Amino acid sequence: MLSALKRVIVGEPLATAQARHERLSKSTGLAIFASDNLSSVAYASEEILRVLILAGIGALDLASPIGVAIAVVIAIVIYSYRQTLLAYPQGASDYIVAKDNIGPLAGLTAGGALLIDYTLTVAVSISAGVAAMTSAVPMLFDHRVIVCVVAIALIALGNLRGLRESGRLFALPSYLFIAAFGLLLGVGFVRYAWSGAPAPAVGDVADPVVPLTALLVLRAFSSGAVALTGIEAVADGVTAFKPPEVHNARVVLAALGVIMVTLFVGTTVLADVYDVVPKHEETVVSQLAWQIFGGGPLYYYVQGVSMLILILAANTAFADFPRLAFFMARDGYLPRQFGNRGDRLVFSNGVVILAVVAILLVIVFRGSTHALIPLYAVGVFTSFTLSQVSMVRRWLRTRPERWAWRVAINATGAVTTATVLVVVAATKFVDGAWIVILLIGLLIGLFLAIRSHYDSVARQLSLDALEPPPPMSTIVLVLVGDLHRGVIQAIQYAQALSPSAKAVYVETDPERTRRLEERWGKWGLGIPLVVLSSPYRSLLGPLLDYIDHLRQQAPNHMVTLVLPEFIPARWWQQLLHNQTALLIKGAMLFRRNVVVTDVPYHLRN
Amino acid sequence: MLSALKRVIVGEPLATAQARHERLSKSTGLAIFASDNLSSVAYASEEILRVLILAGIGALDLASPIGVAIAVVIAIVIYSYRQTLLAYPQGASDYIVAKDNIGPLAGLTAGGALLIDYTLTVAVSISAGVAAMTSAVPMLFDHRVIVCVVAIALIALGNLRGLRESGRLFALPSYLFIAAFGLLLGVGFVRYAWSGAPAPAVGDVADPVVPLTALLVLRAFSSGAVALTGIEAVADGVTAFKPPEVHNARVVLAALGVIMVTLFVGTTVLADVYDVVPKHEETVVSQLAWQIFGGGPLYYYVQGVSMLILILAANTAFADFPRLAFFMARDGYLPRQFGNRGDRLVFSNGVVILAVVAILLVIVFRGSTHALIPLYAVGVFTSFTLSQVSMVRRWLRTRPERWAWRVAINATGAVTTATVLVVVAATKFVDGAWIVILLIGLLIGLFLAIRSHYDSVARQLSLDALEPPPPMSTIVLVLVGDLHRGVIQAIQYAQALSPSAKAVYVETDPERTRRLEERWGKWGLGIPLVVLSSPYRSLLGPLLDYIDHLRQQAPNHMVTLVLPEFIPARWWQQLLHNQTALLIKGAMLFRRNVVVTDVPYHLRN
Repeated sequence: MLSALKRVIVGEPLATAQARHERLSKSTGLAIFASDNLSSVAYASEEILRVLILAGIGALDLASPIGVAIAVVIAIVIYSYRQTLLAYPQGASDYIVAKDNIGPLAGLTAGGALLIDYTLTVAVSISAGVAAMTSAVPMLFDHRVIVCVVAIALIALGNLRGLRESGRLFALPSYLFIAAFGLLLGVGFVRYAWSGAPAPAVGDVADPVVPLTALLVLRAFSSGAVALTGIEAVADGVTAFKPPEVHNARVVLAALGVIMVTLFVGTTVLADVYDVVPKHEETVVSQLAWQIFGGGPLYYYVQGVSMLILILAANTAFADFPRLAFFMARDGYLPRQFGNRGDRLVFSNGVVILAVVAILLVIVFRGSTHALIPLYAVGVFTSFTLSQVSMVRRWLRTRPERWAWRVAINATGAVTTATVLVVVAATKFVDGAWIVILLIGLLIGLFLAIRSHYDSVARQLSLDALEPPPPMSTIVLVLVGDLHRGVIQAIQYAQALSPSAKAVYVETDPERTRRLEERWGKWGLGIPLVVLSSPYRSLLGPLLDYIDHLRQQAPNHMVTLVLPEFIPARWWQQLLHNQTALLIKGAMLFRRNVVVTDVPYHLRN
Repeated sequence: MLSALKRVIVGEPLATAQARHERLSKSTGLAIFASDNLSSVAYASEEILRVLILAGIGALDLASPIGVAIAVVIAIVIYSYRQTLLAYPQGASDYIVAKDNIGPLAGLTAGGALLIDYTLTVAVSISAGVAAMTSAVPMLFDHRVIVCVVAIALIALGNLRGLRESGRLFALPSYLFIAAFGLLLGVGFVRYAWSGAPAPAVGDVADPVVPLTALLVLRAFSSGAVALTGIEAVADGVTAFKPPEVHNARVVLAALGVIMVTLFVGTTVLADVYDVVPKHEETVVSQLAWQIFGGGPLYYYVQGVSMLILILAANTAFADFPRLAFFMARDGYLPRQFGNRGDRLVFSNGVVILAVVAILLVIVFRGSTHALIPLYAVGVFTSFTLSQVSMVRRWLRTRPERWAWRVAINATGAVTTATVLVVVAATKFVDGAWIVILLIGLLIGLFLAIRSHYDSVARQLSLDALEPPPPMSTIVLVLVGDLHRGVIQAIQYAQALSPSAKAVYVETDPERTRRLEERWGKWGLGIPLVVLSSPYRSLLGPLLDYIDHLRQQAPNHMVTLVLPEFIPARWWQQLLHNQTALLIKGAMLFRRNVVVTDVPYHLRN
């Protein structure tokens, strides 16, 4: 019944041989991996303007050059990852790249940072998307936490149903978003060329509160750099593409870069030429769309698609987190369970745990994202920096064609992302960046402890020093408490295991022993009955003593304790019977050379 | 370690042969069984006055005759139970008396009523006692729920440590209470004889709100009748006394009757002659003690002991509930687990479940008793009435010496308690008596369902129609996923069970199968390896299909599936390994003729 429910929810199981058919085409892959990046277009320009406005309205003109600078960083990072793809055709997670080229500790740092980041991405994107939705439908505001939880659960469900279907489900909004912003930019620039900028709204513009310094420009730059989150996902997910995987991933990465740079720089420059001033109560994109389209259906189309893409951005993390967890589990740094593919060829445990942690975050933060956003830039730029330093080391070691040029590219990227990382960590340290740094440290400790346990188990189970063992023999006991059909069956079974099987009875009342012994002649099937006395009415004590005694007498034998157990027809009926078998198994669990065997007798009603 | 903790908390286990030494002496038994009854002296008189005052201050003079009438009922009930003791020397629970003399349904009604009653007694007494305590120490008021919970837990603990120690622990306060009220009455009456009543406080006495009718007198009578709760406990607990048990129980019952009637009638008459008027903010006992002793230490002594006895009244229920549950479990109307004596010869499961339910009640009702008090009179008088009707039927059937006199006594008691029951149920129906009536009905249904299950199990397991069975044989399979020391041990074990044992491997990756087969020559110990292919990566599906296939081929054989399992040195390490064994056992649980056997391999660290 549970199994049937699972079929309805996640669909029929898929065969391993079908795995290739579950791969993503280029167009679906772009939609899947684009939502995280593209969603940042909806707010990255605004983040730049919000910092610059602190130095007064005149400083806003710096937005365009900063936007271009960020576009250069995007181009460098994307160019670097396209090179990484060639070096790592089997999936170039930053975790793997850092581990291979710097060392395990660097790999675990990148891995920990990314796991935290993916989790935060889900919580932040869903909360922001739902906040956008509740701004449009205010009656949902009081229920935003439950709406977030339902949204996360639905996305997790889509992912549990398997990659291809998630791709289909999530492809449309990405393309709608690209179309919406393409239209906004096209109409916006044509209008500007035709009739010039409209007169700026003469509103209550805030006075400058800080001078325009280099640091402020750097802060504006690093605020806008939030647009880079999610670029590493394509390199990480290369094996999800249809073959030729590397080629397809490189094409998608290039296309993503072109679209991102166009939309991001376009939006930033458009905001600059239209003299948009960031407001508390309305987003920059909303102001732009209103000025360009007026209040008609196209305005609501841009706003609605912005909301949708924020929610779907979480989907990237649902593609990435389980895959990274699989890589780390394969290396023994995470529990093995993350390495199992589910019925639908998805790493189901990763999907489930990501959903659970993200839901907890949403509940703890009551669906508010403002506290979480600064946290997640730290993780992104940590893994970018480690990845690019890794590539520099790799080129220096392998010295391929044009290695100096490649070193220059990746070194530029490393210095840039490291600078952004330092600025973000420094300016946001008190706001919570320290939590992420501490958490990365704790995760590294956990990864190492898990790996050390697996290594220890492997050493202990290794056959290397083992001599082919001599044959084993076993002493078979059957525990008898009463005489009924279940017990008779267990006695028969014990006899089948060993002709010298014995029955054991723990005496708590001599009168009952006498009655049992009377009936033993007929029903004991010829096996001897050992009676153990129990002055304290404990079943377990005398039984353990007797078994320990046997183990001492025959240290090379295995002791098999056969337990008759009847299984009621319905599970709740189990509550009406003593759970003696469970107790005995628990007590025997830590005794060497003892095997406990239930012989179930099934009742019919 | 858990076991050591249990020793510290409940003490060393006691041998069955020590049972007799755990019995109660007369003086300890009186203290144990008296607390419930005596605690009602602290409020029963007041309950009468509170009803009469509705008809104006003049009606209060009726308190003394009503008190005397209740004393007559107490005497009748106690006389009746002394007779019951002679008829039931093995313990005369109202449940047993009603079952034997009327029928199972009457017995279950009394049993259900008493179980509800004991639970309510614990919740009400503890809450009332703690309320008295928090009146004296107001800073504890906000923490009253947790104080109640701790008090219940401590009393349960005392009971888990065994009867004799509970007796010692709880004997002193009962005697202090008797001494306190003896002193109060003695000094009170001597003063009255010497100098007459003090001038009544001329306060703001309420005007009559209802006329003085026969119904009002009846209500006053039934309010005071709450004093009778707990009388049945002595008859129920006769086997807890030292031998001669019946004699000692009868002596204790008589002593209890004399003390109760003296204290109750004395308090009621004293309140009458001292013209005490019930107040909202001060109890009648408090007013009496203040008038007689002034505000000195004797006043606080009376008040303090009143609080203590209310808390300890709960102890009676902890003696009774587990014992009644044992009787009902012995007859198959409650789960067998209630029939097990614990290490200290106490019915531990009954103690624990009573504590848990009472704690839940206290938490749900936030430590307030007013809603619960009317509920529990219904249960008491239901069981009284059934018990006395039973005795009438018994005398009519057995016709012993002086049977007509006995019938007359018990019939009077039955009519009286039945009348009280009807009045209480009718006047309190809307306030919650309907809940108790409904709950008794539900419990009866539950008792019958449990009994029906046990009967069905006994029929299905009965050996009556069973022919001595032919010898059984078993097909032994060992499930192999990898090759390590644990697997080698399991293969050896399977060989020890059967020379024709086979190994089974579920293939998810042909490459791994090839590697396994290569090593099988050296490590397979000569047993054949069956490879099952699994296109859906499921371990379970192909295995179940194969086992079902074997069961069809050899329907008279038992299939034994041997699972290699390694046991980590620490329990939490288990979380890092796939719980495949558990999954397989769960899937096999409902298949007939399949036995699953774990062979544990213990890791050292």
